[in-house]
Amino acid sequence: MSRNAELERLTRVQQVLRRKRLDALLVSQPDNRRYLSGYTAPDHGIQESAGFLLIPAEGMPHLLTDSRFTLQAEAESPLFQVDTYAKGMLQLLEKLCKKSGVRTLAFESDYFLHSSFLRLAAMAEKRGLTLQAESGLIEKMRAIKDEHELRLLRQSTQLNEKVFQSVYNTIEPGMTEREIALALELTMREMGAEGPSFDTIVAFGTNAARPHAVPTDRELQAGDLVLIDMGLVYQGYCSDMTRTFVAGKPDQTYIDRHRAVRKAMLAGIGAVRAGVTGAEVDRIARQTLIDAGYEAFGHGLGHGVGVAVHEEPRLSPRGTKQLQAGMVVTVEPGLYLADWGGIRLENMVIVGEDGCEVLNQDTTGLDL
Amino acid sequence: MSRNAELERLTRVQQVLRRKRLDALLVSQPDNRRYLSGYTAPDHGIQESAGFLLIPAEGMPHLLTDSRFTLQAEAESPLFQVDTYAKGMLQLLEKLCKKSGVRTLAFESDYFLHSSFLRLAAMAEKRGLTLQAESGLIEKMRAIKDEHELRLLRQSTQLNEKVFQSVYNTIEPGMTEREIALALELTMREMGAEGPSFDTIVAFGTNAARPHAVPTDRELQAGDLVLIDMGLVYQGYCSDMTRTFVAGKPDQTYIDRHRAVRKAMLAGIGAVRAGVTGAEVDRIARQTLIDAGYEAFGHGLGHGVGVAVHEEPRLSPRGTKQLQAGMVVTVEPGLYLADWGGIRLENMVIVGEDGCEVLNQDTTGLDL
Repeated sequence: MSRNAELERLTRVQQVLRRKRLDALLVSQPDNRRYLSGYTAPDHGIQESAGFLLIPAEGMPHLLTDSRFTLQAEAESPLFQVDTYAKGMLQLLEKLCKKSGVRTLAFESDYFLHSSFLRLAAMAEKRGLTLQAESGLIEKMRAIKDEHELRLLRQSTQLNEKVFQSVYNTIEPGMTEREIALALELTMREMGAEGPSFDTIVAFGTNAARPHAVPTDRELQAGDLVLIDMGLVYQGYCSDMTRTFVAGKPDQTYIDRHRAVRKAMLAGIGAVRAGVTGAEVDRIARQTLIDAGYEAFGHGLGHGVGVAVHEEPRLSPRGTKQLQAGMVVTVEPGLYLADWGGIRLENMVIVGEDGCEVLNQDTTGLDL
Repeated sequence: MSRNAELERLTRVQQVLRRKRLDALLVSQPDNRRYLSGYTAPDHGIQESAGFLLIPAEGMPHLLTDSRFTLQAEAESPLFQVDTYAKGMLQLLEKLCKKSGVRTLAFESDYFLHSSFLRLAAMAEKRGLTLQAESGLIEKMRAIKDEHELRLLRQSTQLNEKVFQSVYNTIEPGMTEREIALALELTMREMGAEGPSFDTIVAFGTNAARPHAVPTDRELQAGDLVLIDMGLVYQGYCSDMTRTFVAGKPDQTYIDRHRAVRKAMLAGIGAVRAGVTGAEVDRIARQTLIDAGYEAFGHGLGHGVGVAVHEEPRLSPRGTKQLQAGMVVTVEPGLYLADWGGIRLENMVIVGEDGCEVLNQDTTGLDL
């Protein structure tokens, strides 16, 4: 991460803390931690944290971790004072709060276990600290990307498309869903990705009728439709794309349905701009499908993408907030028929003041 | 999972609930959920749950999930009534508690977000429900394995060793840590594993001095030491093994250090039996290394393995509980020298009344 971007993020957090009259924020959510510090160690579940940030409203931020990660944290997070705990994070936190005169401490309620909260509350009681449960404070910042992030999201998308094309060209009858998914994930790593940004979906025929299909040992038959929903992590930033096509020559039913979904995607993309709500964009794409005589998809139209593959904002009937320039969202309408199959098409776009920029260049199935 | 094992587990949970005068337990922890129900859908982080169990002290247990997973839950968990929520889990939970006359509801404090707790508490307040934060209730049951589980853990270990050997035989100078890690994870899947049980560690030379090394693009040189820490999931059960060896002919320094670690592992394994504490086993292995003139490792000696790769009990200075027959633990001392490298050796054992059974048969490096 660029040092400037990191400094700017920290400055913004500290401004928010001062405005809210909080002395410090304890960051436990791993994507937020990486976003603010550049520290890349992943948690192994919420119960095995690789570290915490303690960001005071003024002064030097701290990165708290255990000895397994001290060297890595120091190397990756030069703006942070790295403190190592041997006997649990809480004891060190107590010491640091005392030393820095923290009286009001905010924590991330959406990524803090109830049992950890009980221990934190006992410590706070003993020390006369006031706790403040915060929700979405850093997530709200993350939703709007800076230039550095947009560059990485473009690169992540380009790499994702390169991986897709390289495997797409090898697909032939007899291959299984699992084989193709594995080939995609393998190629991602070979081409320099950190890994997939979510479990790759490869679904043939009726299996594609499940929005969250899991690849099986089903073999591809000529004429089957193929849905591939894939993404990767490149230098910490995620991509996410869905393409659907037919192994062989599509029949008229497929072509009609595919075009209806494409029209819905394009309508959604056409509606994205700063100032509209996620719900409005969702409604416009959804209505396009309904007008064409199809049932609407059961999931939301899209979601933000950044250091996490699912983040703010949401494009869904419940997305009441206005989009802002610099947000990056997916637009992914789908059509699902249990006895037939499913078609989903998904691009990523950057929200602009007067429209949006589509990150994807891959046209597979889009010119049908 | 065998139906009998599942029934027995449910019966035991219900006995515990009645003894504690709890009307029901809400299970949110995904390993506990799978252990009790056989339902295999994974969570995508704690914020994207694939479902919850509601186990009453008497009568039919419920599995609460959303429409994406209803069919899978019904197929995998025939002993459970599957209920689907459309508007969030909490609303359905409220309805079920009312219907079943639940007055005192326990929840898993160690796997329940603080923000979710705030919402649960508001519902409980409204409905006159009493909440009880529970910790480790199912984890304690899971620590002791039944025959069915021991069989799967043996098979998981055997498969892990088969994968290790198949890749071990291909290792040669010029290969990178990442390439070997990828080959291992690929081979796991090809040979029938669900996937790795944790991110595979492959570390050459000085990179092995980090207990949680991440594979890099470093190329293997003749004479480098190679540390591989790997595990897989087979039919829901994890394995975990570490081997360290030299690419080529080891020098005397390596041999001496390797033997010291092996001696520590064997001392640890020799100390495992029902009735001793995890701390005692840890101390014995640790002391062996110290007596040989080395610094003790900064991590614990071992951990339980089952449906999770890290579970109860812990073999560490803080492991004050006595081991019991039927527990399965790793024994994994290590020696880490920043300027030189690291050696760690790890086997899995079943705790018995008078000793233990080693699950591993692979002898790579152990006969040095």
